[in-house]
Amino acid sequence: MTEKDFETLINRIQPADGAAVERAKKRQAELAKPPGSLGKLEEISIRMAGITGSVKNTIASCRVLVFCADNGVVSEGVAVTPQSVTLAQAINMTRHMTGMSSLASYFGNGIDVVDVGIMTCFTHPGIADRKVLPGTGNIRRGPAMTREEALRAIAVGLERAEKAKLEGMDIIGVGEMGIGNTTTSAAVLAALTGLAPEEVTGRGAGLTDAAFELKKQVIADALRVNSPDGNDVADVIAKVGGLDIAAMTGAFIGAAKNRMPAVVDGFISIVAALCAVRLCPAVRDYIFLSHASRERGYMAAAEAIGLAPFLLLDMRLGEGSGCPIAFEVIKAACAVMRDMATFGEAAIDDGYLDEIRKRR
Amino acid sequence: MTEKDFETLINRIQPADGAAVERAKKRQAELAKPPGSLGKLEEISIRMAGITGSVKNTIASCRVLVFCADNGVVSEGVAVTPQSVTLAQAINMTRHMTGMSSLASYFGNGIDVVDVGIMTCFTHPGIADRKVLPGTGNIRRGPAMTREEALRAIAVGLERAEKAKLEGMDIIGVGEMGIGNTTTSAAVLAALTGLAPEEVTGRGAGLTDAAFELKKQVIADALRVNSPDGNDVADVIAKVGGLDIAAMTGAFIGAAKNRMPAVVDGFISIVAALCAVRLCPAVRDYIFLSHASRERGYMAAAEAIGLAPFLLLDMRLGEGSGCPIAFEVIKAACAVMRDMATFGEAAIDDGYLDEIRKRR
Repeated sequence: MTEKDFETLINRIQPADGAAVERAKKRQAELAKPPGSLGKLEEISIRMAGITGSVKNTIASCRVLVFCADNGVVSEGVAVTPQSVTLAQAINMTRHMTGMSSLASYFGNGIDVVDVGIMTCFTHPGIADRKVLPGTGNIRRGPAMTREEALRAIAVGLERAEKAKLEGMDIIGVGEMGIGNTTTSAAVLAALTGLAPEEVTGRGAGLTDAAFELKKQVIADALRVNSPDGNDVADVIAKVGGLDIAAMTGAFIGAAKNRMPAVVDGFISIVAALCAVRLCPAVRDYIFLSHASRERGYMAAAEAIGLAPFLLLDMRLGEGSGCPIAFEVIKAACAVMRDMATFGEAAIDDGYLDEIRKRR
Repeated sequence: MTEKDFETLINRIQPADGAAVERAKKRQAELAKPPGSLGKLEEISIRMAGITGSVKNTIASCRVLVFCADNGVVSEGVAVTPQSVTLAQAINMTRHMTGMSSLASYFGNGIDVVDVGIMTCFTHPGIADRKVLPGTGNIRRGPAMTREEALRAIAVGLERAEKAKLEGMDIIGVGEMGIGNTTTSAAVLAALTGLAPEEVTGRGAGLTDAAFELKKQVIADALRVNSPDGNDVADVIAKVGGLDIAAMTGAFIGAAKNRMPAVVDGFISIVAALCAVRLCPAVRDYIFLSHASRERGYMAAAEAIGLAPFLLLDMRLGEGSGCPIAFEVIKAACAVMRDMATFGEAAIDDGYLDEIRKRR
């Protein structure tokens, strides 16, 4: 995908269907309940109408896309978990043994595990081989990858979202597996928002105080060494991001291109969603947040996108683990819009009341 | 049910199984993820173990119990909705046309609509006739009911929870339908906690400023006229509560008696849960909150119970509408505990890695 092809693609993405949104708002106001009393379920159902163009929607098929990649910055000691875990957990996802995949399996969601940059070269029947590079460079010393490689990784995400749509999915969730990716995500978020590393950096999988201080220093160094241009998303991703973040950015854009809703998981996922929205503001219309991640920086990214999460589960696992539960909430919102009675339908006929009345 | 029978029943309720809780904590610590990274899902799965006595649980059958009753205080102008809506919506629930019932139907949950005090005398095949009174007295002028009537309504809730258990339910949700019941609930909450009416009173289904001021005055008057004893829950319910609140209190106690989890919905439901916990502190172990209701007073009740909600949906409909979604979250928590691999199970064998490795 050339830079020009990518621009053309982005320029063709349409915002939500405003007429369908208006029809959906009208129906919500007619449903037999105090106005607004179903809160975010109403809002979700209205946004779904904007995405599909239909007031009544059913979500039957869901898939979590998981982009797996290694990050060179791990050599700086910013992660508590060994780098080999990226591959091990990617394999375990295909066995439905991880947090996300056990939930996806329970709720009947499909998963699509994609190797976009795991360090080891391997073949596995359950993992799509879309490796752009066997891991990125160490962002404390130089760029993660070239701009061309970042665009290739974005194209992988676009392709997997499109595949989900072609295979009949009604919604996707966007997750990741990549040791070290809370560091790269914090660096990307700082570059895009201008926030200081301290404001966007969390403890990831559970760093000690000393390692946490180091992590913030590494992020500050990465920003200084690479000087990413905060107004150029591809530059930011290439210089201080990762292949997982790039592919996830592509998946959010691909969902919007295909008029399909996409669910954000935790910190890395929301940073990718912000990248997608900065590249193409219309993508925001297709995005749903799920849970408020405990990882520092999540809320800053949510505010930058202008959306709010609806699950308060204190989760910080990643993988896409918030998506299967979020799918259930979005299904619920669609059920209300579809199946609740309007005031007209809910009115009980006086004749019927006479009939059931009894005298004691 | 005599006062003495009720006391005996309450004294027999056992707290959660501490040994099962310890075994569950141990397994959570062994699951292949950073410790604590699944947040409240971990906590829920551990509490479920305490309830059932087993570390691994499956929630297959769910039912929402809906206690319907009219409130005499409606004649004071504290509700925006006409009193006849209590009966109309009770009937619509049996038709799966309301907010809660459309969600319950979508997720395959059963519902149990119970008339514990609707003003009209009627028979309906889908509504259990357990009417204690055809509506309560106006709490601004005198007590809602006698203490004996309150105990009879509590017994209705106990019976319906027990019925759910006998019919194979793994979990119940506790909802209500009763125009005027945010007023009675606020009065009960103020009496139990000593908080001022302003601190616990919300706008219900959407009162105007003037009606909202009146509602707070009515609650203050009800507390002054009836002088409920905040240390005597049955006295509080009888004097300033309602038949719905009484029955819901009984349902929470009945769930605990039958070692079955019970999900709180919104404001009225959490006030009933607080009544149950005040009557018998062990009941707390069996209760799960669902969504943080927008109705003022909800968080005060949650803090008094010492539990936190996990859904942030800005809902304020009642009926039990938060329960079907909460069931899905609790199912998810059980799936993680049951299906995720431990670190031992998740370890990838070196021989296997050699096998899948390829050279480019």
